[in-house]
Amino acid sequence: MDYQAILNLIERELTPDIKLGKVASYIPQLAKVDPLKFGVYLYCHDSTSYQFGDSQEKFSIQSISKVFTLIIAKELLGKDLWKRVHVEPSGTAFNSLTELERDQGIPRNPFINAGSIVVADTLLSALDHPKEDLLKFVQKLCGDDSISYNEAVAASEKAHGYRNKALVNYMKALGNIDNDPDDVLNFYFYQCSIVMSCEQLSKTFMLLANEGRHYKTQEQVIDPQSVKRINSIMQTCGFYDEAGEFSYRVGLPGKSGVGGGIVAVHPKHYSVAVWSPMLNSKGNSALGMKALERLTTLTGLSIF
Amino acid sequence: MDYQAILNLIERELTPDIKLGKVASYIPQLAKVDPLKFGVYLYCHDSTSYQFGDSQEKFSIQSISKVFTLIIAKELLGKDLWKRVHVEPSGTAFNSLTELERDQGIPRNPFINAGSIVVADTLLSALDHPKEDLLKFVQKLCGDDSISYNEAVAASEKAHGYRNKALVNYMKALGNIDNDPDDVLNFYFYQCSIVMSCEQLSKTFMLLANEGRHYKTQEQVIDPQSVKRINSIMQTCGFYDEAGEFSYRVGLPGKSGVGGGIVAVHPKHYSVAVWSPMLNSKGNSALGMKALERLTTLTGLSIF
Amino acid sequence: MDYQAILNLIERELTPDIKLGKVASYIPQLAKVDPLKFGVYLYCHDSTSYQFGDSQEKFSIQSISKVFTLIIAKELLGKDLWKRVHVEPSGTAFNSLTELERDQGIPRNPFINAGSIVVADTLLSALDHPKEDLLKFVQKLCGDDSISYNEAVAASEKAHGYRNKALVNYMKALGNIDNDPDDVLNFYFYQCSIVMSCEQLSKTFMLLANEGRHYKTQEQVIDPQSVKRINSIMQTCGFYDEAGEFSYRVGLPGKSGVGGGIVAVHPKHYSVAVWSPMLNSKGNSALGMKALERLTTLTGLSIF
Amino acid sequence: MDYQAILNLIERELTPDIKLGKVASYIPQLAKVDPLKFGVYLYCHDSTSYQFGDSQEKFSIQSISKVFTLIIAKELLGKDLWKRVHVEPSGTAFNSLTELERDQGIPRNPFINAGSIVVADTLLSALDHPKEDLLKFVQKLCGDDSISYNEAVAASEKAHGYRNKALVNYMKALGNIDNDPDDVLNFYFYQCSIVMSCEQLSKTFMLLANEGRHYKTQEQVIDPQSVKRINSIMQTCGFYDEAGEFSYRVGLPGKSGVGGGIVAVHPKHYSVAVWSPMLNSKGNSALGMKALERLTTLTGLSIF
Repeated sequence: MDYQAILNLIERELTPDIKLGKVASYIPQLAKVDPLKFGVYLYCHDSTSYQFGDSQEKFSIQSISKVFTLIIAKELLGKDLWKRVHVEPSGTAFNSLTELERDQGIPRNPFINAGSIVVADTLLSALDHPKEDLLKFVQKLCGDDSISYNEAVAASEKAHGYRNKALVNYMKALGNIDNDPDDVLNFYFYQCSIVMSCEQLSKTFMLLANEGRHYKTQEQVIDPQSVKRINSIMQTCGFYDEAGEFSYRVGLPGKSGVGGGIVAVHPKHYSVAVWSPMLNSKGNSALGMKALERLTTLTGLSIF
Repeated sequence: MDYQAILNLIERELTPDIKLGKVASYIPQLAKVDPLKFGVYLYCHDSTSYQFGDSQEKFSIQSISKVFTLIIAKELLGKDLWKRVHVEPSGTAFNSLTELERDQGIPRNPFINAGSIVVADTLLSALDHPKEDLLKFVQKLCGDDSISYNEAVAASEKAHGYRNKALVNYMKALGNIDNDPDDVLNFYFYQCSIVMSCEQLSKTFMLLANEGRHYKTQEQVIDPQSVKRINSIMQTCGFYDEAGEFSYRVGLPGKSGVGGGIVAVHPKHYSVAVWSPMLNSKGNSALGMKALERLTTLTGLSIF
Repeated sequence: MDYQAILNLIERELTPDIKLGKVASYIPQLAKVDPLKFGVYLYCHDSTSYQFGDSQEKFSIQSISKVFTLIIAKELLGKDLWKRVHVEPSGTAFNSLTELERDQGIPRNPFINAGSIVVADTLLSALDHPKEDLLKFVQKLCGDDSISYNEAVAASEKAHGYRNKALVNYMKALGNIDNDPDDVLNFYFYQCSIVMSCEQLSKTFMLLANEGRHYKTQEQVIDPQSVKRINSIMQTCGFYDEAGEFSYRVGLPGKSGVGGGIVAVHPKHYSVAVWSPMLNSKGNSALGMKALERLTTLTGLSIF
Repeated sequence: MDYQAILNLIERELTPDIKLGKVASYIPQLAKVDPLKFGVYLYCHDSTSYQFGDSQEKFSIQSISKVFTLIIAKELLGKDLWKRVHVEPSGTAFNSLTELERDQGIPRNPFINAGSIVVADTLLSALDHPKEDLLKFVQKLCGDDSISYNEAVAASEKAHGYRNKALVNYMKALGNIDNDPDDVLNFYFYQCSIVMSCEQLSKTFMLLANEGRHYKTQEQVIDPQSVKRINSIMQTCGFYDEAGEFSYRVGLPGKSGVGGGIVAVHPKHYSVAVWSPMLNSKGNSALGMKALERLTTLTGLSIF
């Protein structure tokens, strides 16, 4: 498979559409990103890699971080985690309160905001130094100690995060938050503020394309059963209210963030990250969705 | 892979749990089935097959038929189909009216009742002899002309189908049903009444594990892109409000029916059908879910 | 109180606004009404009466009929009626299915469509000749045997009544309809097709402004406790999703219909009916709402 | 009308049922109230008054305070108030987030928590000393300078008020809160902590039974149109999800609080307050509801 030729074709095809969509603007730090950024990095099972564009520039990974905290929480809590968050796709927007009310404070899945806030709460209870431990975990998976939080983004999220504040207080009222709601949100906002490049993301996510082993050291970090579980949740819940659409068009498990990043994995084949800050109406990178659809179409490969 | 040994182990492990759950009882024809029936049939990409128990006894496939009508409608209408039904997982029960009201008559996906009724409506408009054509399509895929409707089941569904009647009339009111609502329901109830065995189902569904080719003749019936789409929808929407749970535990695209059947496919590997009439609280075969979870765990293989 | 002078003032003030709103158009029989019709008839406790405009022209009373069937059902069933329909205002549109699903088939109140369909079902079970009995009851209250159904309107409602068909079948599925759904709807559509003038309506509704006694014969038809109950339900539920707005602006119990009629009562003072076919966005007569608001403002009298 | 005899009869009839229901327990300060307290105070248009039991003991008025803030906000903002809160009855519980999400942050009415929080926000913007001004207003209406806040209750509400915190932050996210959410909640919790006796409440609420005039000085505090509006909102929205039931059984505008108080007015006749801390499942005083139903039944008088 000539992945580089395919990536080059995707770049040529899609670059003309780069202005479709809207950059996330709910906090100033995200609004000021250059909307014309576009990059892809694909890391293969055989350790080769392919890329184009801004694949090495760092951006705010936002909700992609929810996969990291989920992996850690699942390792720490095991099945007990599922008493506090379900694994069903949500029928509504990523920050909806209606389903949460109906389900009495148990979020539909760990990738909507409410669900990831519950996951953050479990880490706060289980870890001595949650902020440091999370960062170290990601750095280790990536083999890169330079990965860091963006303090300004975290602070800005906190200053504007009224809806997330509503979510965490609502779940606290219903008994599904153990720690102080403000502490939980602080950690959650830090988690979302991690900055990484496509290259870093694709390498890090190789964990889920490599049966739970580190892409470089081949250390077994999580077991293959856990990989199956995490990938399954990404497949059904990774794209807010557009999970079905992504699955339908791309056919790979993946996760997106409002910073314009999307990461997807093809187990035993590759891990790929794409970045383009312009979002579609559902909050997912418009060009990123297209790039990944073209990738699975042009390679003729998907999990299906 | 010694599939037969794995199946034998699953049979031994699960048979003691056979009485968990409840047989569907909303129509007398389903209620009188023997609750202790249990069978599996697995058909491999290399034309070998493995089985145990009641794998050759016919049962009411019910909602599994929704995959057949979807395949036909997708071939006939192409992208126009998605103007009338979405491909997003539903956050509520399979026969809910609430989401339908919120989404103004466009069902969330083709595997909830409302969505399949819309699909039935498109077939009524597009085919000269929908009932005959559907049956011929299934017979051809299976290579077995004996597959038939069960008139008594269809009649009983009709006599008790008040909720489906509500759904079709509601969508008619909102402009998403072209034909007479009663005609649409008649066809829909026939579709659900098809009787097939695990063996027949697994062979028929090989289409989706064999890149769109007939399991025996290798004729290309639908193109590989369509297979990717259909499998994706099964993955995210195939199990009512339990799609995420099934995906999480089993990790394969699949579809269940209230008759107790479940079919699942592992693309390029196998197609498998299981039958056990006792249902869990979500309306899916309790033993069937467990059998498939054990299958992907024991083989160590899933799409993830 | 010089009611006639007040009515004259209202006519002068409001006639310029007569073109605001839209005539109901979901069935042709209602769409073809003259939109410029405007009339008021006010019948006083002391048997005097006042009017202007088209106060003696008959129109389709539609949902105003729901008060008549409720009165009869309450007399026949007593408290048992409230096992099948609640008396709480609805938070959604008059024909919503969402609340009905949440409340498991028990309608919020007898004045939304679902509630009145349940009331119709009780009359079908309790009366030998429901159609004839209903008409006789209204004729007797009004002292006018000429009141009749409009067959064309009833037939047209039936031909277009998909949403009501959805409602009745849904409640049948949930066990809150005893009779055949089609029979219930037939009766319901007849009930809605009654034609009456403002004069006839105001006289008939004197029952609820005269402590349960006939306006002319002073016969005690229902007891004062029942009057309190019925008026209370009109106050909180009489105007679909605009009950609070009407109560706020007018301050009287009342009931509207999509034919453009509104009737309201001031207990121990008067009964008033207004007709103007142009509806506001909530489906209530735009001019009718204003006329009654002016009436209680100019008289300085309301129940509050 | 021998009101005292009627009150005596009510006391005799209902005292045996005094243990039905449950005292509010979501904050310790409310949980420790004596559940056997029971008192009524009725103040007549002719300045006579009648009472029994614990009618002069002070209790936490809680949501009854929402009427006071609404009156002030309506005077200060006029019609602009209705851009930020509707006057429609709510179809769900008093602290629901679902309707708020559907209506994009505009609460259904000023008597559900979300609505009263918006009202509190308007007072914070419009008044220099909201806490002092509110208290002075109530003291003046009652003619009693001893009325005060309960600091312990306010502090306890704040410590446990996660759900209200969710509500205010959610509305802030949707642009319907101008001030800092914590400041708004602080004021709101103070407002709810006012302690008053039945005697004080009934005298204060004479404003709404006396066409807007002070019960003692006869000063015109608000105009009669405003009285009509406020009473109308109490009628349709005063009892959470039980407004229809209260209206149906009692037939008077009123307002309840989780402290077990209920106040109701019969315009031009009387104002009445009842206190019994045991609540029914909807959060309204069980005995209070019964006492008022008996009152309007035994007097044969209601607004209907």
